[in-house]
Amino acid sequence: MASVYEGPVQTLIDELGRLPGVGPKSAQRIAFYLLKVAPEDARRLAAAIVEAKERVTWCRRCFNIAEGELCGFCRDERRDARVLCVVEEPRDIVAVERTQEFQGRYHVLQGAISPIEGVGPEQLRIRELLERIANEGVEEVILATNPNIEGEATAMYLARLLKPLGIRVTRIASGLPVGGDLEYADEVTLGRALEGRREVDA
Amino acid sequence: MASVYEGPVQTLIDELGRLPGVGPKSAQRIAFYLLKVAPEDARRLAAAIVEAKERVTWCRRCFNIAEGELCGFCRDERRDARVLCVVEEPRDIVAVERTQEFQGRYHVLQGAISPIEGVGPEQLRIRELLERIANEGVEEVILATNPNIEGEATAMYLARLLKPLGIRVTRIASGLPVGGDLEYADEVTLGRALEGRREVDA
Repeated sequence: MASVYEGPVQTLIDELGRLPGVGPKSAQRIAFYLLKVAPEDARRLAAAIVEAKERVTWCRRCFNIAEGELCGFCRDERRDARVLCVVEEPRDIVAVERTQEFQGRYHVLQGAISPIEGVGPEQLRIRELLERIANEGVEEVILATNPNIEGEATAMYLARLLKPLGIRVTRIASGLPVGGDLEYADEVTLGRALEGRREVDA
Repeated sequence: MASVYEGPVQTLIDELGRLPGVGPKSAQRIAFYLLKVAPEDARRLAAAIVEAKERVTWCRRCFNIAEGELCGFCRDERRDARVLCVVEEPRDIVAVERTQEFQGRYHVLQGAISPIEGVGPEQLRIRELLERIANEGVEEVILATNPNIEGEATAMYLARLLKPLGIRVTRIASGLPVGGDLEYADEVTLGRALEGRREVDA
């Protein structure tokens, strides 16, 4: 877009446009919104960004976000250290927590293997995962990476790496979403659902 | 969404979620993006927000964004002061400028009449528009508010207000977008296109 705007407005639009999922039109819309709101509202957003960058770090143990050395899950003694749920990103922890099905600990890889984006195993927190398995009495690792190409490749890689260690290695199930329609399921998902079929308890 | 996040991350997500077009999921995505980028990148965004709020004001004459008293268009002596293009927001000026068809000046209403959102004529820069028409030798006012319900209502209101002043009052044309297909045009737009038909020069 032509920069018909005065300096600081264009700068703001440019900076906003770098955010994920914010195109030039949205950046412009957000910029004008910020110019219109009360100064304290805009300042609060700016302060929140600075504050988060200053105070939030990565958990020394699981690489979730944390304030201080350890994240809330790693500090929580009631969580079962024998079961590790391996996810790609901190936000995935939130998704798993919402199920209220998991009482174990987490390990955040901070990404997934992606040859296209040049991300190999060495860029992920896999060395740290191996250390934890060696030292923390882990009995099961649940591979909860995304069910897409990168996540599957990462899960496969980790499964091969971890199986020989004599621990249980599991992968979250793929299948039809609950409430979904067979008719609208894509063939890969439906294929997975068939493949992963389970005996019905009756 | 449950706030499983630590304090400053949740604060950042909340603040981002207040931006227009940013839902809870995008807010989370942007927040984690900001946590991952280099500190100077996040700081630059925060600084751009603060800087824009501090330096950008509204043009004293036309209520476009401006640094200082007057905006670039009002400072530009080459622009024809006899033709005023009335728009809802500063971003609409950019759209008009892109056409390179308009050499006059602008007037930004800073909104549109919307009973639902409680915006009446008195909340818009209409008094200032009347002052300009009285003092600046305006001969034509082009009503370039949006072709939606609020914009049309605003244009209608202004037309009734301005016509008695003996100046030319025009409205931008509605019709089929160039490159569009009759087949896919909605009936209101096609109706407008028919209504606004013009003699073909041959």
